[in-house]
Amino acid sequence: MTKFNEQYAINFLHLHRMGIDTHQEPVIYMRQDSYVCRAEGFGAQSRVCVSTANHSIIATVNMVTSDILSHKEVGLSESAWQLLNASEGEKAHFKHAKPADSMSSVRGKIYGTPFTDQSASEIITDITKGAYSDIQLSSFVTACADSKLTTKEVISLTRAMVSCGRTLDWGSLQVMDKHCVGGLPGNRTTPIVVAIVAASGLIMPKTSSRAITSPAGTADTMETLTPVTLSLNQIRSVVEKEGGCIAWGGAVSLSPADDILIRVEKALDLDSEGQLVASVLSKKIAAGSTDVLIDIPVGVTAKVRSLNYGRKLAKQLTETGNALGINVKTLFSDGLQPVGNGIGPALEARDILQVLKNHHRGPADLRERSITIAGEILEMGKAAPPGEGKRLAEHKLKSGEAWNKFQAICEAQGGLKEPPSANHHHCVSASKAGIVSYINNRVIAKLAKLAGAPAAPAAGLDFHVKLGDKVERETHIFTIHSEAPGELQYAIDFLNEHPGAVQIEEECI
Amino acid sequence: MTKFNEQYAINFLHLHRMGIDTHQEPVIYMRQDSYVCRAEGFGAQSRVCVSTANHSIIATVNMVTSDILSHKEVGLSESAWQLLNASEGEKAHFKHAKPADSMSSVRGKIYGTPFTDQSASEIITDITKGAYSDIQLSSFVTACADSKLTTKEVISLTRAMVSCGRTLDWGSLQVMDKHCVGGLPGNRTTPIVVAIVAASGLIMPKTSSRAITSPAGTADTMETLTPVTLSLNQIRSVVEKEGGCIAWGGAVSLSPADDILIRVEKALDLDSEGQLVASVLSKKIAAGSTDVLIDIPVGVTAKVRSLNYGRKLAKQLTETGNALGINVKTLFSDGLQPVGNGIGPALEARDILQVLKNHHRGPADLRERSITIAGEILEMGKAAPPGEGKRLAEHKLKSGEAWNKFQAICEAQGGLKEPPSANHHHCVSASKAGIVSYINNRVIAKLAKLAGAPAAPAAGLDFHVKLGDKVERETHIFTIHSEAPGELQYAIDFLNEHPGAVQIEEECI
Repeated sequence: MTKFNEQYAINFLHLHRMGIDTHQEPVIYMRQDSYVCRAEGFGAQSRVCVSTANHSIIATVNMVTSDILSHKEVGLSESAWQLLNASEGEKAHFKHAKPADSMSSVRGKIYGTPFTDQSASEIITDITKGAYSDIQLSSFVTACADSKLTTKEVISLTRAMVSCGRTLDWGSLQVMDKHCVGGLPGNRTTPIVVAIVAASGLIMPKTSSRAITSPAGTADTMETLTPVTLSLNQIRSVVEKEGGCIAWGGAVSLSPADDILIRVEKALDLDSEGQLVASVLSKKIAAGSTDVLIDIPVGVTAKVRSLNYGRKLAKQLTETGNALGINVKTLFSDGLQPVGNGIGPALEARDILQVLKNHHRGPADLRERSITIAGEILEMGKAAPPGEGKRLAEHKLKSGEAWNKFQAICEAQGGLKEPPSANHHHCVSASKAGIVSYINNRVIAKLAKLAGAPAAPAAGLDFHVKLGDKVERETHIFTIHSEAPGELQYAIDFLNEHPGAVQIEEECI
Repeated sequence: MTKFNEQYAINFLHLHRMGIDTHQEPVIYMRQDSYVCRAEGFGAQSRVCVSTANHSIIATVNMVTSDILSHKEVGLSESAWQLLNASEGEKAHFKHAKPADSMSSVRGKIYGTPFTDQSASEIITDITKGAYSDIQLSSFVTACADSKLTTKEVISLTRAMVSCGRTLDWGSLQVMDKHCVGGLPGNRTTPIVVAIVAASGLIMPKTSSRAITSPAGTADTMETLTPVTLSLNQIRSVVEKEGGCIAWGGAVSLSPADDILIRVEKALDLDSEGQLVASVLSKKIAAGSTDVLIDIPVGVTAKVRSLNYGRKLAKQLTETGNALGINVKTLFSDGLQPVGNGIGPALEARDILQVLKNHHRGPADLRERSITIAGEILEMGKAAPPGEGKRLAEHKLKSGEAWNKFQAICEAQGGLKEPPSANHHHCVSASKAGIVSYINNRVIAKLAKLAGAPAAPAAGLDFHVKLGDKVERETHIFTIHSEAPGELQYAIDFLNEHPGAVQIEEECI
């Protein structure tokens, strides 16, 4: 029999910061000929548990076959370095990471066995602590996609996601919230709605996400106007002062598993129905919301393509919300075309400011949608009697109270600034005269993403027409904005391959 | 308007071999502050097309924030280096990789739209050329898992997989083949069957795979006895001389998409039914086989757990084979316990040699299974009249003709050698007297893998008992073999957490 303790004692290497950014997946770089590799049998792609005196993470191994590391060193990627809170030369210990036992429940699900409260909790716990590789995360996301989760499973997953993160507690207050089930470029009502609702005396501590598969999330858009990376204490202080805030949810770990899953959903361009419900509601519950209005745009090229599917989604949202103790109301809206003129963080921010300032260029559709949603919330919060919410919302906007409140919120968050603008533009014109008859939201969103949005905040599209508009040959349809020439070219190439993004029909005489 | 050609002209960097092994996924290391990154808008995890004068690959970007690269350099991982056939300092051009359009068919499948001949072909073509990231591959594998593919879809995928790789052509000869739908540790009949069949005058150019989710594949086992990485010409010459061979299929690109998918299936520990059929048959068809016998072990802890599922699988195998012009026959076998004594490449090789040499220690069950399978193949190939195959197979084994043929095949492949043995052992004994009543194949297979199999060829388990055997307290049940102490300890830890791997029932008096 062999003794192991002596061997384990020398499974130590000194940490070295490689300066390699592998995005979220933590990677360690190990010499192939090191004792630790040979003793433990590590290979490229092995999942390894790395422990220092105070921290422990699970990372993927990349093997080093050159001399960029000494025999006593192990390299860390940037995310591994940060998660370990490492310092140069610090000693660390290495062993095989235990395979995530909960993957057997994922495999079970693929073969038709539903998740239980327990298996959902084990999976979400493992995901939160980084025990799943990208390949495993992708399998979980895919196994949940389409309508593969029952409401019971969604409730289990939502509860598990809430309990793995931090939560906000507002005491016994009624706390308003809203969410839009994406898929509609430019549908950036949140900042306007928060301003109206808070100006009406209700509490609305809004945490928003960054884009998942869209060219901009509310957090991306707001970040071009004011800081959104707020701590829980900062959120509390802004809300105590102004009644509302518009912060980035990811910064406060309200549902850390969701943030990990979102990255994979983004890479797959895949939002699953059940995960959508769990993702939305886990963040609302963790944020301490009691009343949530959910806007569901419906349209053939929106995320929700049919009213039938929309109703199913609404039912799952309401039932899951009720099971977990919050009041959820849904609202269907028109999802046929982009909302506002801008698509992309800074361009959408411009539209928001114009509406709040009652500027004549403020897009009418964005204004109308914001008023409708704010009106519903005012009624849910009993700030307006039934049927009177919309009228009150419109008054708050027209009177400038909403704009004042918005400025005050931004000041409390760290100051209001001008959104940036892009250096590279390409204007797309009508190839013939006629009526704008069709806009493909998916192609439009992809175009804005290829142009650089949301990573490049000034990038995106600026629309100059709406469905039903009459155009002449050479009328400007939209302008592509980019921060880098390569991205502009890439968007143009894609547009040339998908010429039907916007269609014009000749008028019948 | 901007002009792009000048910008593109300077999207060049010089290649540097980083000496980092990232396994199969090609990675490039780029300075965050390089012109190319800024101009193209690359970020960590961007998918980039890298082109030299003669080659072009798609790779994932890791950002470099330190000085390990100069401003004019880009680093390549080992797999990127090899795929590009690069030389130090060579110039390369970089642009965004086009998103794999075929991923929209994968998303379609997740939402219920079946694959067509065309979409299957596009997906497999994209996978073969490396256009799918690991996350995308995992989603495809998961979307196909369980019974989510119809026979029509499986036929489309199989055809696509064949046409993306190289194929062997044996003229108008009848070419025999076999396959075992894994899941049963130690079920290593192939080398014995090939020896018997070739010794009977039939043609059996066997290409085998490495382990997917098991502790050893036939190629892993045979590699401990003789070289298996043969070129198509070498295979042809061995078969022309000896009538048979046992080579590694992955070395000859018979179904390159399958080799890529297998890596992800391995990471997920997931074999899907439809992909199993496509994987098996694409390799058989590409290998030029005309007649294939497929062994399906059935047992509660085997891969195929019920006869019902086995029959479904058999039907899909037969129908897909027929649609693609080959004769497929299936055979159900007992999948209750491991076959032979050894589990792991070298330990299984030892069992094979003992059976071929008619050694008294040769496991009777491995011998019996090999004779049954060889008998069926002899009848399919008309080397024996119906009902007489098994008798002929037994004769070929007993007479030493099979052993002679096996030695001749190994000599033709490059020489027969002794399998290696492990330095670290741990013996597991019965905790009480009784009858061996249950063996959990899955736990046993996992144990052998944790001990290091198949990457460490001498690692694995050596069983000393079979189901139904009478044991005393302290009778040796099995021995764990490892090449590294860390792996041995890891297997022991796992065993302690799963004590029910082998169960012993006290005898009723």
